[in-house]
Amino acid sequence: MRDSPACGTLPDTGLIEAARGLIPADMVFTDAEIFNPFTCSFERGNLAVKNGVVLGTGDYEGIVERDMRGKYLVPGLIDAHVHIESSLLIPREYALLVSRHGTRVVIADPHEIANVAGLQGIGFMLSGSRNLPVDIRYMVPSCVPATPADIGGAVLSAEECRRLFRKKGVLGLGEVMNVPGVLSGDPSICEKIGIFGLRDGHAPLLAGNDLNAYILAGLQSDHECTTSKEAEVKLRQGMYLYLREGSTERNIEELAPLITPNTVSRCCFATDDCHADLLMNDGHIDRCIRKAVSCGVLPELAIRMATLSAAERFGLSSYGALSPGRRADFCIVDDPELFRVNEVIVAGIPLGSAALPTGPRKKLRAHFACRVPAPSDLRITEKGIARVIGLIPGQILTETLSFECNGRELPDVNRDILKVVVCNRYGKKSIATGLVHGFGFLRGAIASTVSHDAHNLIAVGTNDTEIIEAIAAVVRMRGGMTAVASGQRADLPLNCGGLMSTLPFAEVVERIRSLQDLTSTMGGISDPFMYLSFLSLTVIPALRITDRGIFDYGRFSDVGLFV
Amino acid sequence: MRDSPACGTLPDTGLIEAARGLIPADMVFTDAEIFNPFTCSFERGNLAVKNGVVLGTGDYEGIVERDMRGKYLVPGLIDAHVHIESSLLIPREYALLVSRHGTRVVIADPHEIANVAGLQGIGFMLSGSRNLPVDIRYMVPSCVPATPADIGGAVLSAEECRRLFRKKGVLGLGEVMNVPGVLSGDPSICEKIGIFGLRDGHAPLLAGNDLNAYILAGLQSDHECTTSKEAEVKLRQGMYLYLREGSTERNIEELAPLITPNTVSRCCFATDDCHADLLMNDGHIDRCIRKAVSCGVLPELAIRMATLSAAERFGLSSYGALSPGRRADFCIVDDPELFRVNEVIVAGIPLGSAALPTGPRKKLRAHFACRVPAPSDLRITEKGIARVIGLIPGQILTETLSFECNGRELPDVNRDILKVVVCNRYGKKSIATGLVHGFGFLRGAIASTVSHDAHNLIAVGTNDTEIIEAIAAVVRMRGGMTAVASGQRADLPLNCGGLMSTLPFAEVVERIRSLQDLTSTMGGISDPFMYLSFLSLTVIPALRITDRGIFDYGRFSDVGLFV
Repeated sequence: MRDSPACGTLPDTGLIEAARGLIPADMVFTDAEIFNPFTCSFERGNLAVKNGVVLGTGDYEGIVERDMRGKYLVPGLIDAHVHIESSLLIPREYALLVSRHGTRVVIADPHEIANVAGLQGIGFMLSGSRNLPVDIRYMVPSCVPATPADIGGAVLSAEECRRLFRKKGVLGLGEVMNVPGVLSGDPSICEKIGIFGLRDGHAPLLAGNDLNAYILAGLQSDHECTTSKEAEVKLRQGMYLYLREGSTERNIEELAPLITPNTVSRCCFATDDCHADLLMNDGHIDRCIRKAVSCGVLPELAIRMATLSAAERFGLSSYGALSPGRRADFCIVDDPELFRVNEVIVAGIPLGSAALPTGPRKKLRAHFACRVPAPSDLRITEKGIARVIGLIPGQILTETLSFECNGRELPDVNRDILKVVVCNRYGKKSIATGLVHGFGFLRGAIASTVSHDAHNLIAVGTNDTEIIEAIAAVVRMRGGMTAVASGQRADLPLNCGGLMSTLPFAEVVERIRSLQDLTSTMGGISDPFMYLSFLSLTVIPALRITDRGIFDYGRFSDVGLFV
Repeated sequence: MRDSPACGTLPDTGLIEAARGLIPADMVFTDAEIFNPFTCSFERGNLAVKNGVVLGTGDYEGIVERDMRGKYLVPGLIDAHVHIESSLLIPREYALLVSRHGTRVVIADPHEIANVAGLQGIGFMLSGSRNLPVDIRYMVPSCVPATPADIGGAVLSAEECRRLFRKKGVLGLGEVMNVPGVLSGDPSICEKIGIFGLRDGHAPLLAGNDLNAYILAGLQSDHECTTSKEAEVKLRQGMYLYLREGSTERNIEELAPLITPNTVSRCCFATDDCHADLLMNDGHIDRCIRKAVSCGVLPELAIRMATLSAAERFGLSSYGALSPGRRADFCIVDDPELFRVNEVIVAGIPLGSAALPTGPRKKLRAHFACRVPAPSDLRITEKGIARVIGLIPGQILTETLSFECNGRELPDVNRDILKVVVCNRYGKKSIATGLVHGFGFLRGAIASTVSHDAHNLIAVGTNDTEIIEAIAAVVRMRGGMTAVASGQRADLPLNCGGLMSTLPFAEVVERIRSLQDLTSTMGGISDPFMYLSFLSLTVIPALRITDRGIFDYGRFSDVGLFV
């Protein structure tokens, strides 16, 4: 693994002197309860720090000493798999937010922005991730586009993946979701796998010999386990397990029983997709630790997962423990069971007093060419049995429903048959209109450019006028989220590829709340934007809509709106 | 770490097909109890193998199937630290011997041959380690010579270490024994440390802040712990622990209590120095497992140490487990507690039926220029208080003794004051004579070119005639071991740098036995060659002898034979 342990770094003789105690440390944290992941226990001691590096625990004098009696020191927390774009924040704002929860490293897969803006989008993430209180390392997106038919703003070739691997901060290959491609030995996916040493997997429900084949092909981890039985099999077959707790996918409770001293070195936490409001209000990896502990995992094991286990999985030899020569990055908690992060120390300095990134927040000028539909684009003239996408509460799966409809009478609020519209935003002028059941709106419309994985503009509403109004607002913003209802409107501009906002995180959270306030007046389900964002995802059953029209996962092909 | 996980290797589509079960496996081992290091448990299953690779455990059909009911399958065993030269065998014969005990990988430090023949000697080991039933990986010797005063046949510069790092089969930097050099920030040792990512330590009794400094400098492991307290501190500070069980240094019994599910991922086994006879009669890593289990370690934990823990420590991602994509290398035992290796499988094929290396065993033509002493060289004319090296049973430490002596009356068998002679074998004609107490010989003499670390020719005996006769025999062999007693002689030619023999391992063991048979007739201690081989090691207290004369470790300087 690339930076573990660090090749080509000369020992620092000044630090050696200080570690020996011949010269004073910059700072000594005295009488602290320090988490030791090598023994999975807390140990009372004095932690000496110099130049941001741990000298060791022992008998030290510091230029500054700080009494830590009753305080618990935990190495900086690590998120093993996350899509930063899902927070709607740029990397810098994301780092400012999660660092307050004790997160020090995140392993990010810029899969969403890669589908919108390809290498330009990935470059935007890499360049925007420097000198932040969180060390953001990247995995190269392996499946751009998700399927050959769903090309968004880019196609990432194996050769481009190879070039990305050479870039600073890039560790390996991101979740390989194209399981059929792996199992059939698809040359392009095999070529991508062959480039990297570190490779994350994504294999929901995969089992038996096909799971063996997927592992044999080189995929080393999985974060899609939803049952402890599935997770146990993957663990036994040698996969690293990332226990995921995102905004919508929450698996810790089910998987917690698997965490034992025998397995903990192979298990980590991942948040995958978390919106900014959840990160602000509930936390990040600290939240995962609290959740695991509340599900019966020993605090020492949960903390081990979030520190050394993840550091070793990714070969990050300067993280994961507070042992000599590693970074003096840790969070301070009063009670390891409650695990509330009171203070965060980065390079030996309190996060609050460290210099934070300043200067303008650069936005991503991604190509955006989206036509606002005319009323005629939304008109449905046929009559008969229509294929209607059925939402399933709490899931990204949909079902295929059939309704007897007269196109001219749609949307039909009484039967909760709303129009869903997808507008290509990459210069093709294609627009498709379909029908969806389950939003339950009585009035208004919403529109968004967060629409997995191609991220075209998608809207749903109770009437054509407000649908067009919402779409027009999003197009004016060149990407974002809009809700329109009875004369009111709420907007969240996403000026980075229509996925992320350059606004400060607190303001983004504020905008998300105002969108929720307005959609809650429309009646119907909560989190409508989340459901909306998955209606174009053709790799998940059953009925979907793209800018080409209705898509049937079962046949894996486009179908007509009417049977 | 360099080959973990394997970068640049394309998935093999044929193996993927077989792993899926679409085409039959070469071989299926049915109903076996297979060790799973990821859960530290044995699991009943069918292990499928193709092209020497594990397809997985599951429901498979094989061209050949083998019923393994009641058999336990354990991944190939790994030795984390060994000096092959100490076996007196060349790598090929060493591999043939230890592979029969289930060993699949050894991490070797060619420190001894490097002191004799430098790059030529290391090249001899590397080129002699290809295509063997044991995968021999090398660590670059970090301390050649052991001290600036003890230059033997070579000096290894940092630049030469850097070049060696590029060679196939080289993983990292071998045990850094120069602890004072590290703690004082010696530029040459720091430069060597800076070259490598994987670095083994060697820090007997080092503790406190100096231990922190040694770890901070980049040393990651230790195999010199003799007390559980020392080992526990090193483990807590983040060092990998290699529990050593060699011919003379045996630490498993003392350290066994440290092995728990919480620590096992950081602990391995190492044999360091084992003679061929011990390897043949008692075993190798299998012997370490038996010893650990007999000391109360759970078999599953002991086996975990010898497999996945060591594989992960060295980044050997194709070893350590029998999971999909890894090598089908394992040993078969009837009872994991007794751990007797009945059969060894390499690449899916029984070791016995695999093609073993054939062709001539190449010897190392190292420079050898040693003068046989004349009687005058051994003559001692002074009288008075002599400095006499005192052996300590079971230890490589010596003590400084003082005896009232008349040189002309030496050796003095009644007082067990024998002559010990060191002859430079690198072209300097220097010869030194000293005195040693503790061998207890009543007759005869022994001589050897195994003499740490410079490996000059060293001899000890009860009379000058037989000392010279033994030395002359070793010189005629251009290196080896000889015992001479009352007209009888036994020889073991070491035609590779005076350290290793090209003879088949069984013959070497035979020769060792004949040497022991003869020395046992001389009265005195057993293993006299072992004690003799450490009398020149100036880095260990207290009194030593080199080709310059008597050396006092306390003053760290040469001293006279008489006070």
